[in-house]
Amino acid sequence: MTNFNPQSPESRSQPIILHPIGYVERDEGDDELSGDELRARPARIVLDPALTDGLLGLEPGSDIVVLYYFHRSAGYDLQVHPRGDPSRPLRGVFAVRSPRRPNPIAVTTVRVRRVEGNVLEVAGLDALDGSPVLDIKIHAPLFDIPSSTFPQRT
Amino acid sequence: MTNFNPQSPESRSQPIILHPIGYVERDEGDDELSGDELRARPARIVLDPALTDGLLGLEPGSDIVVLYYFHRSAGYDLQVHPRGDPSRPLRGVFAVRSPRRPNPIAVTTVRVRRVEGNVLEVAGLDALDGSPVLDIKIHAPLFDIPSSTFPQRT
Repeated sequence: MTNFNPQSPESRSQPIILHPIGYVERDEGDDELSGDELRARPARIVLDPALTDGLLGLEPGSDIVVLYYFHRSAGYDLQVHPRGDPSRPLRGVFAVRSPRRPNPIAVTTVRVRRVEGNVLEVAGLDALDGSPVLDIKIHAPLFDIPSSTFPQRT
Repeated sequence: MTNFNPQSPESRSQPIILHPIGYVERDEGDDELSGDELRARPARIVLDPALTDGLLGLEPGSDIVVLYYFHRSAGYDLQVHPRGDPSRPLRGVFAVRSPRRPNPIAVTTVRVRRVEGNVLEVAGLDALDGSPVLDIKIHAPLFDIPSSTFPQRT
Protein backbone atom coordinates (compact mmCIF):
# COMPACT_ATOMS: atom_id res chain seq x y z
CA MET A 1 0.00 0.00 0.00
CA THR A 2 1.46 3.35 -0.97
CA ASN A 3 0.82 6.67 0.72
CA PHE A 4 -1.62 7.66 -2.03
CA ASN A 5 -4.15 10.14 -0.74
CA PRO A 6 -7.46 9.85 -2.59
CA GLN A 7 -8.47 13.26 -1.25
CA SER A 8 -5.68 14.93 -3.18
CA PRO A 9 -6.36 15.50 -6.87
CA GLU A 10 -2.67 16.33 -7.30
CA SER A 11 -1.63 12.76 -6.62
CA ARG A 12 -3.74 11.62 -9.56
CA SER A 13 -1.80 13.75 -12.00
CA GLN A 14 1.75 13.36 -10.75
CA PRO A 15 4.27 12.35 -13.41
CA ILE A 16 4.87 8.60 -13.65
CA ILE A 17 8.39 7.36 -14.29
CA LEU A 18 8.87 4.03 -16.04
CA HIS A 19 12.01 2.04 -16.77
CA PRO A 20 12.08 -0.06 -19.95
CA ILE A 21 12.32 -3.82 -19.40
CA GLY A 22 13.97 -4.34 -22.77
CA TYR A 23 13.86 -3.25 -26.39
CA VAL A 24 12.81 -4.38 -29.85
CA GLU A 25 15.44 -5.66 -32.25
CA ARG A 26 14.74 -6.00 -35.96
CA ASP A 27 16.68 -6.94 -39.03
CA GLU A 28 18.60 -4.15 -40.69
CA GLY A 29 16.52 -2.25 -43.23
CA ASP A 30 13.18 -3.05 -41.60
CA ASP A 31 12.78 0.61 -40.64
CA GLU A 32 11.85 1.41 -44.23
CA LEU A 33 8.80 -0.85 -44.01
CA SER A 34 5.13 0.00 -43.46
CA GLY A 35 3.26 -1.13 -40.36
CA ASP A 36 1.68 -4.01 -42.27
CA GLU A 37 5.08 -5.12 -43.56
CA LEU A 38 6.60 -4.87 -40.07
CA ARG A 39 3.87 -7.10 -38.69
CA ALA A 40 4.52 -9.69 -41.38
CA ARG A 41 8.17 -10.11 -40.36
CA PRO A 42 9.50 -11.62 -37.17
CA ALA A 43 10.99 -9.32 -34.54
CA ARG A 44 12.87 -9.95 -31.33
CA ILE A 45 12.16 -8.59 -27.87
CA VAL A 46 15.46 -8.44 -26.00
CA LEU A 47 14.67 -8.41 -22.29
CA ASP A 48 16.92 -7.08 -19.55
CA PRO A 49 18.74 -10.34 -18.62
CA ALA A 50 17.93 -9.69 -14.94
CA LEU A 51 14.23 -10.21 -15.79
CA THR A 52 14.57 -13.48 -17.73
CA ASP A 53 12.88 -15.53 -14.98
CA GLY A 54 9.73 -13.48 -15.60
CA LEU A 55 9.23 -15.29 -18.92
CA LEU A 56 8.38 -18.64 -17.28
CA GLY A 57 5.25 -20.01 -18.94
CA LEU A 58 5.64 -18.19 -22.27
CA GLU A 59 6.27 -20.58 -25.14
CA PRO A 60 5.84 -20.82 -28.91
CA GLY A 61 2.20 -20.16 -29.67
CA SER A 62 1.57 -17.97 -26.59
CA ASP A 63 -0.28 -14.73 -27.39
CA ILE A 64 1.11 -11.75 -25.53
CA VAL A 65 0.24 -8.07 -25.22
CA VAL A 66 3.35 -5.95 -25.71
CA LEU A 67 3.52 -2.39 -24.40
CA TYR A 68 6.25 -0.34 -25.99
CA TYR A 69 7.19 3.30 -26.27
CA PHE A 70 6.82 5.07 -29.62
CA HIS A 71 10.29 6.52 -29.17
CA ARG A 72 10.29 8.35 -32.49
CA SER A 73 6.92 9.96 -32.03
CA ALA A 74 6.87 13.63 -31.05
CA GLY A 75 3.83 15.75 -30.26
CA TYR A 76 0.20 15.10 -31.11
CA ASP A 77 -3.00 16.68 -32.35
CA LEU A 78 -6.24 16.20 -30.44
CA GLN A 79 -8.10 15.41 -33.66
CA VAL A 80 -6.75 13.75 -36.80
CA HIS A 81 -7.83 12.28 -40.10
CA PRO A 82 -7.42 8.51 -39.60
CA ARG A 83 -4.26 7.22 -41.30
CA GLY A 84 -3.59 10.78 -42.47
CA ASP A 85 -6.29 10.48 -45.14
CA PRO A 86 -7.99 13.91 -45.47
CA SER A 87 -11.05 12.28 -47.07
CA ARG A 88 -11.80 10.56 -43.77
CA PRO A 89 -13.64 12.65 -41.15
CA LEU A 90 -11.72 13.95 -38.14
CA ARG A 91 -11.54 11.71 -35.10
CA GLY A 92 -10.21 12.28 -31.61
CA VAL A 93 -6.74 10.97 -30.77
CA PHE A 94 -8.37 8.58 -28.26
CA ALA A 95 -10.52 7.08 -31.05
CA VAL A 96 -7.53 6.19 -33.27
CA ARG A 97 -4.31 4.20 -32.84
CA SER A 98 -1.90 6.86 -34.12
CA PRO A 99 1.57 6.91 -32.48
CA ARG A 100 1.18 10.66 -32.02
CA ARG A 101 -0.66 10.82 -28.67
CA PRO A 102 -0.31 12.47 -25.26
CA ASN A 103 1.44 9.39 -23.85
CA PRO A 104 2.93 7.62 -26.86
CA ILE A 105 2.61 4.03 -25.65
CA ALA A 106 1.77 1.24 -28.07
CA VAL A 107 -0.30 -1.81 -27.17
CA THR A 108 -0.08 -4.71 -29.61
CA THR A 109 -1.01 -8.37 -29.34
CA VAL A 110 1.59 -10.65 -30.92
CA ARG A 111 2.38 -14.36 -30.97
CA VAL A 112 5.53 -15.89 -29.49
CA ARG A 113 7.46 -17.95 -32.01
CA ARG A 114 10.52 -18.81 -29.94
CA VAL A 115 12.00 -18.21 -26.49
CA GLU A 116 15.77 -18.30 -26.09
CA GLY A 117 17.06 -17.08 -22.75
CA ASN A 118 16.16 -13.40 -22.48
CA VAL A 119 15.04 -13.10 -26.13
CA LEU A 120 11.49 -13.60 -27.43
CA GLU A 121 11.02 -13.96 -31.16
CA VAL A 122 7.52 -12.79 -32.04
CA ALA A 123 5.21 -12.46 -35.06
CA GLY A 124 2.85 -9.55 -35.61
CA LEU A 125 4.82 -6.75 -33.94
CA ASP A 126 4.77 -3.35 -35.67
CA ALA A 127 7.46 -1.73 -33.48
CA LEU A 128 10.52 -0.15 -35.05
CA ASP A 129 14.04 -1.28 -34.18
CA GLY A 130 15.18 0.00 -30.81
CA SER A 131 11.70 0.67 -29.39
CA PRO A 132 11.84 0.53 -25.58
CA VAL A 133 9.57 -2.22 -24.22
CA LEU A 134 7.61 -1.34 -21.07
CA ASP A 135 5.65 -4.51 -20.33
CA ILE A 136 4.67 -7.94 -21.60
CA LYS A 137 1.42 -9.57 -20.48
CA ILE A 138 -0.17 -12.85 -21.43
CA HIS A 139 -3.20 -12.16 -23.66
CA ALA A 140 -6.35 -12.91 -21.67
CA PRO A 141 -9.92 -12.76 -23.01
CA LEU A 142 -11.16 -11.36 -19.69
CA PHE A 143 -9.05 -8.22 -20.17
CA ASP A 144 -8.57 -8.05 -23.92
CA ILE A 145 -11.73 -9.21 -25.67
CA PRO A 146 -14.69 -6.78 -25.58
CA SER A 147 -17.49 -9.28 -25.31
CA SER A 148 -16.14 -10.95 -22.19
CA THR A 149 -15.35 -7.87 -20.12
CA PHE A 150 -18.94 -7.41 -18.93
CA PRO A 151 -22.24 -9.29 -19.06
CA GLN A 152 -23.64 -9.60 -22.56
CA ARG A 153 -27.31 -9.05 -23.19
CA THR A 154 -27.60 -10.19 -26.81
CA MET B 1 12.11 12.47 -35.52
CA THR B 2 13.91 12.57 -32.19
CA ASN B 3 17.65 12.47 -31.66
CA PHE B 4 17.47 8.78 -30.77
CA ASN B 5 20.71 7.04 -31.57
CA PRO B 6 20.15 3.39 -32.46
CA GLN B 7 23.85 2.73 -31.87
CA SER B 8 23.51 3.61 -28.22
CA PRO B 9 22.05 0.90 -26.00
CA GLU B 10 21.68 3.50 -23.22
CA SER B 11 19.00 5.38 -25.13
CA ARG B 12 16.88 2.22 -25.15
CA SER B 13 16.81 2.06 -21.37
CA GLN B 14 16.40 5.72 -20.43
CA PRO B 15 13.57 6.41 -18.00
CA ILE B 16 10.30 7.39 -19.63
CA ILE B 17 8.18 10.07 -18.02
CA LEU B 18 4.44 10.04 -18.55
CA HIS B 19 1.75 12.48 -17.49
CA PRO B 20 -1.71 11.12 -16.68
CA ILE B 21 -4.49 12.25 -19.01
CA GLY B 22 -7.13 11.76 -16.33
CA TYR B 23 -8.20 9.46 -13.55
CA VAL B 24 -10.79 6.84 -12.65
CA GLU B 25 -13.72 7.83 -10.45
CA ARG B 26 -15.86 5.20 -8.73
CA ASP B 27 -18.74 5.20 -6.30
CA GLU B 28 -17.82 5.34 -2.66
CA GLY B 29 -17.21 1.90 -1.16
CA ASP B 30 -16.22 0.27 -4.45
CA ASP B 31 -12.66 -0.12 -3.17
CA GLU B 32 -13.81 -3.05 -1.03
CA LEU B 33 -14.84 -5.01 -4.12
CA SER B 34 -13.05 -7.81 -6.00
CA GLY B 35 -11.87 -7.37 -9.58
CA ASP B 36 -14.91 -9.23 -10.91
CA GLU B 37 -17.24 -7.05 -8.87
CA LEU B 38 -15.46 -3.88 -10.03
CA ARG B 39 -15.90 -4.92 -13.65
CA ALA B 40 -19.61 -5.48 -13.08
CA ARG B 41 -20.19 -1.89 -11.95
CA PRO B 42 -19.95 1.26 -14.04
CA ALA B 43 -16.96 3.55 -13.55
CA ARG B 44 -16.11 6.99 -14.84
CA ILE B 45 -12.96 8.14 -16.60
CA VAL B 46 -12.53 11.84 -15.86
CA LEU B 47 -10.30 13.28 -18.55
CA ASP B 48 -8.20 16.43 -18.26
CA PRO B 49 -10.71 18.96 -19.67
CA ALA B 50 -7.99 20.28 -22.01
CA LEU B 51 -8.08 16.91 -23.81
CA THR B 52 -11.86 16.63 -24.27
CA ASP B 53 -11.63 17.18 -28.05
CA GLY B 54 -9.65 13.93 -28.23
CA LEU B 55 -12.83 11.96 -27.50
CA LEU B 56 -14.45 12.76 -30.87
CA GLY B 57 -15.78 9.52 -32.34
CA LEU B 58 -16.24 7.67 -29.06
CA GLU B 59 -19.87 6.95 -28.30
CA PRO B 60 -22.04 4.52 -26.34
CA GLY B 61 -21.13 1.03 -27.48
CA SER B 62 -17.54 1.88 -28.49
CA ASP B 63 -14.98 -0.60 -27.19
CA ILE B 64 -11.84 1.09 -25.89
CA VAL B 65 -8.52 -0.06 -24.47
CA VAL B 66 -7.75 1.81 -21.25
CA LEU B 67 -4.20 2.08 -19.96
CA TYR B 68 -4.00 3.04 -16.32
CA TYR B 69 -1.43 3.03 -13.59
CA PHE B 70 -1.72 0.53 -10.72
CA HIS B 71 -1.06 3.34 -8.26
CA ARG B 72 -1.40 1.16 -5.18
CA SER B 73 0.89 -1.58 -6.43
CA ALA B 74 4.39 -1.68 -4.98
CA GLY B 75 7.19 -4.04 -5.93
CA TYR B 76 6.96 -7.35 -7.77
CA ASP B 77 8.25 -10.90 -7.88
CA LEU B 78 9.61 -12.36 -11.10
CA GLN B 79 7.61 -15.54 -10.59
CA VAL B 80 4.25 -15.94 -8.86
CA HIS B 81 1.48 -18.43 -8.26
CA PRO B 82 -1.38 -17.17 -10.47
CA ARG B 83 -4.04 -15.37 -8.42
CA GLY B 84 -1.94 -16.07 -5.33
CA ASP B 85 -3.07 -19.72 -5.32
CA PRO B 86 -0.13 -21.85 -4.11
CA SER B 87 -1.65 -24.96 -5.72
CA ARG B 88 -1.06 -23.41 -9.17
CA PRO B 89 2.46 -23.78 -10.58
CA LEU B 90 4.74 -20.75 -10.64
CA ARG B 91 4.58 -18.51 -13.70
CA GLY B 92 6.67 -15.56 -14.78
CA VAL B 93 5.32 -12.07 -14.14
CA PHE B 94 5.11 -11.55 -17.92
CA ALA B 95 2.84 -14.62 -18.22
CA VAL B 96 0.25 -13.31 -15.72
CA ARG B 97 -1.81 -10.12 -15.32
CA SER B 98 -0.87 -9.34 -11.73
CA PRO B 99 -0.69 -5.63 -10.80
CA ARG B 100 2.69 -6.32 -9.18
CA ARG B 101 5.03 -5.95 -12.18
CA PRO B 102 8.16 -4.01 -13.13
CA ASN B 103 6.08 -1.28 -14.79
CA PRO B 104 2.67 -1.47 -13.11
CA ILE B 105 0.52 -0.45 -16.07
CA ALA B 106 -2.90 -2.02 -16.62
CA VAL B 107 -4.42 -2.66 -20.03
CA THR B 108 -8.14 -3.38 -20.05
CA THR B 109 -10.75 -3.36 -22.78
CA VAL B 110 -14.01 -1.77 -21.68
CA ARG B 111 -17.21 -0.53 -23.30
CA VAL B 112 -18.30 3.11 -23.37
CA ARG B 113 -21.78 3.62 -21.92
CA ARG B 114 -21.99 7.38 -22.00
CA VAL B 115 -19.94 10.42 -22.97
CA GLU B 116 -20.59 13.71 -21.21
CA GLY B 117 -18.05 16.42 -21.86
CA ASN B 118 -14.75 15.21 -20.44
CA VAL B 119 -16.27 12.20 -18.64
CA LEU B 120 -16.62 8.69 -20.08
CA GLU B 121 -18.85 6.27 -18.24
CA VAL B 122 -17.65 2.74 -18.96
CA ALA B 123 -18.53 -0.88 -18.17
CA GLY B 124 -15.97 -3.59 -17.50
CA LEU B 125 -13.22 -1.53 -15.85
CA ASP B 126 -11.42 -3.12 -12.89
CA ALA B 127 -9.51 0.02 -11.84
CA LEU B 128 -9.75 1.34 -8.30
CA ASP B 129 -10.93 4.87 -7.53
CA GLY B 130 -8.28 7.47 -8.26
CA SER B 131 -6.22 5.35 -10.67
CA PRO B 132 -4.28 7.63 -13.02
CA VAL B 133 -5.26 7.04 -16.66
CA LEU B 134 -2.40 7.09 -19.18
CA ASP B 135 -4.12 6.46 -22.50
CA ILE B 136 -7.38 5.54 -24.19
CA LYS B 137 -7.38 3.81 -27.58
CA ILE B 138 -10.20 2.55 -29.73
CA HIS B 139 -10.20 -1.28 -29.62
CA ALA B 140 -9.04 -2.56 -33.02
CA PRO B 141 -8.89 -6.23 -34.07
CA LEU B 142 -5.66 -5.58 -36.00
CA PHE B 143 -3.86 -4.69 -32.78
CA ASP B 144 -5.88 -6.45 -30.11
CA ILE B 145 -7.09 -9.81 -31.43
CA PRO B 146 -4.44 -12.53 -31.74
CA SER B 147 -5.73 -14.24 -34.85
CA SER B 148 -5.67 -11.11 -36.97
CA THR B 149 -2.23 -9.78 -36.09
CA PHE B 150 -0.43 -12.08 -38.52
CA PRO B 151 -1.26 -14.60 -41.25
CA GLN B 152 -3.03 -17.69 -39.96
CA ARG B 153 -2.03 -21.12 -41.20
CA THR B 154 -4.77 -23.25 -39.69
